Amino acid sequence: MNLDELATPAALVDVPRMQHNIARMQAQLDALGVRFRPHVKTTKCVEVVAAQRAAGAQGITVSTLLEAEQFFKAGYTDILYAVGIAPAKLPQVLALRRAGCALKLITDNADVARQVAGFGVAHGETLEVWIEIDCDGHRSGIPPEAAVLLDVGRALAAPGVKLGGVLTHAGSSYDLDDPQALAALAERERAACVRAAERLRAEGLPCAEVSIGSTPTALSARGLPGVTEVRAGVYVFFDLVMANVGVCKAQDIALSVLATVIGHQAEKGWAIVDAGWMAMSRDRGTQKQGHDYGYGQLCTLAGEPLAGYVLSGANQEHGIVSREGRPDPDIAQRFPVGSRVRILPNHACATGAQFPQYHALFPDGNVAQWDRFHGW
Amino acid sequence: MNLDELATPAALVDVPRMQHNIARMQAQLDALGVRFRPHVKTTKCVEVVAAQRAAGAQGITVSTLLEAEQFFKAGYTDILYAVGIAPAKLPQVLALRRAGCALKLITDNADVARQVAGFGVAHGETLEVWIEIDCDGHRSGIPPEAAVLLDVGRALAAPGVKLGGVLTHAGSSYDLDDPQALAALAERERAACVRAAERLRAEGLPCAEVSIGSTPTALSARGLPGVTEVRAGVYVFFDLVMANVGVCKAQDIALSVLATVIGHQAEKGWAIVDAGWMAMSRDRGTQKQGHDYGYGQLCTLAGEPLAGYVLSGANQEHGIVSREGRPDPDIAQRFPVGSRVRILPNHACATGAQFPQYHALFPDGNVAQWDRFHGW
Repeated sequence: MNLDELATPAALVDVPRMQHNIARMQAQLDALGVRFRPHVKTTKCVEVVAAQRAAGAQGITVSTLLEAEQFFKAGYTDILYAVGIAPAKLPQVLALRRAGCALKLITDNADVARQVAGFGVAHGETLEVWIEIDCDGHRSGIPPEAAVLLDVGRALAAPGVKLGGVLTHAGSSYDLDDPQALAALAERERAACVRAAERLRAEGLPCAEVSIGSTPTALSARGLPGVTEVRAGVYVFFDLVMANVGVCKAQDIALSVLATVIGHQAEKGWAIVDAGWMAMSRDRGTQKQGHDYGYGQLCTLAGEPLAGYVLSGANQEHGIVSREGRPDPDIAQRFPVGSRVRILPNHACATGAQFPQYHALFPDGNVAQWDRFHGW
Repeated sequence: MNLDELATPAALVDVPRMQHNIARMQAQLDALGVRFRPHVKTTKCVEVVAAQRAAGAQGITVSTLLEAEQFFKAGYTDILYAVGIAPAKLPQVLALRRAGCALKLITDNADVARQVAGFGVAHGETLEVWIEIDCDGHRSGIPPEAAVLLDVGRALAAPGVKLGGVLTHAGSSYDLDDPQALAALAERERAACVRAAERLRAEGLPCAEVSIGSTPTALSARGLPGVTEVRAGVYVFFDLVMANVGVCKAQDIALSVLATVIGHQAEKGWAIVDAGWMAMSRDRGTQKQGHDYGYGQLCTLAGEPLAGYVLSGANQEHGIVSREGRPDPDIAQRFPVGSRVRILPNHACATGAQFPQYHALFPDGNVAQWDRFHGW
């Protein structure tokens, strides 16, 4: 299979760019002396994660139990489920652990910790739980100085459960675009998580793992004393949001949507393509950033960005291509009907999820189909 | 299966509400004396479309050739593919027609019309093509008075191809919220499409079908002389965007996402649920409307809206529940860990697409799994 044979829309992975991104993150974390546990929620794709593992990753992070089940089936056993566990999901967790999966759970809630312990005792199992720490106020987790941290720690010292470590995620890094601010947030993320671990240890509670990470902070950290592992996901493909944050260039983005021109509104300077929001996703993550790319950045079929041309609008299966600033009167000549383009996405995690498979483009022109999981 | 056994997140369909919405649209179009061709892109679900057909729908509209293939396999033959045809897709079209599917194509481009005709001649087939008309400037199509309309019409009078009709879609109706303005746009949609048909007929070109529609205009039209059929999709479930437009109430919305509370940030007035943007989609369609619901409207497990409580933020698998206006200090008591809620979506087409299946909830409490298609 090659590019010309692909039906549109298709989700293309530029394999050399992906390998470059994988090598870059692994080299950064090797230099910092910490293990790397990639977050596979970005791709949900066995072939991509195999490349991350081959480069040196140890263990994986998942966002759903379906990912845990699918990657366990593919041979991964060291799996961290990094969304607060709902007790109703414990039977699914138990089945994975009994099959041999070293699945780790997280919580930031003492009631949940006690319920997990009760479930473990009732089923003669010891479930490993890590405590979620809040380092930047963006979502879940316990602030490192909060009293409840020790309550949860003590609840996880009971039979049926084992306190494995602490983890945090500096999700607010997506709002930054300055290297100094990113480095400062990376240090804040590290310090918060290490401090939480120290408080637990000072109480005599075990806390072997100190796990931090987001793509921007992982690439901006200058030293990670006290940290045992880093998690990051979107770096494997990067996207326009990450380009605006400043941790990659458009030329590093490994995921694009292949589309075909199906018409024009020439007097408005529009070309219409067969990739709308069903292909790109509804993610408008660049809307509030320094450069708003609409629904994506147009590229040639070979993948070179066409500066100034964006997907300015999207319906379910229609995308509107236009020039930023002022309409292009020659839009129909630039993008003739039947011609093909590639479109860089705002958010690789969201765009990938719209497709049942990626099409991986190798340097020799060959294209391979790489399936991805869908649903929960 | 019943509601208590469902893993979260899940996409719930309230079957009585869906049946009510189906009956309402069919009664409206029966009263106006036109055929109804539902757009199945909203649900991509055989069980839902069977209910639409049972109520009186004739033929279906699709947004992808995968939908055409899947519904043809399910016994539907009268299928309109309502996205401008890309010539590279004609071999797929040919295969469907040769298998017995009365598939209709659309275009607004004379070059494409000639390419379709050439393809038809080369394969000894006559492909039926409708001309896309632009009634409101929102996307594709030919304005009814434009000279190119007759160029495309003549290109479709050639061997290998057959001009079947004209169609338009008043997509700008989503931007309105006033019954008078909606009725006026419905009339403009009708008049534009009928005028295009008249111009073609005056040139001696056949134009049997005059097809219009969007959910808001279909429900707002007061008379449809000259129209042969109406298309609409999202009405089958409705959503918060449609509630803001004013064509349904929150209590009519048949699609919701079932979610579980997994934690709190009590001092901020947040509850965290296991439905983020992967479940709700990134669609923020209510952002610019009269009432911005964030990522969705919270409801009780029984489906009753909890006024003022919305999904104010979303990460991939985390949703943040908060009260509009001022934080609720009792959020943790109102939404305890492990409790379940339902969340009404901004946009039913986008939210449904995040799930491999719906879970259909019947009045007796039984739940059935209804699969939906994914991809292209």
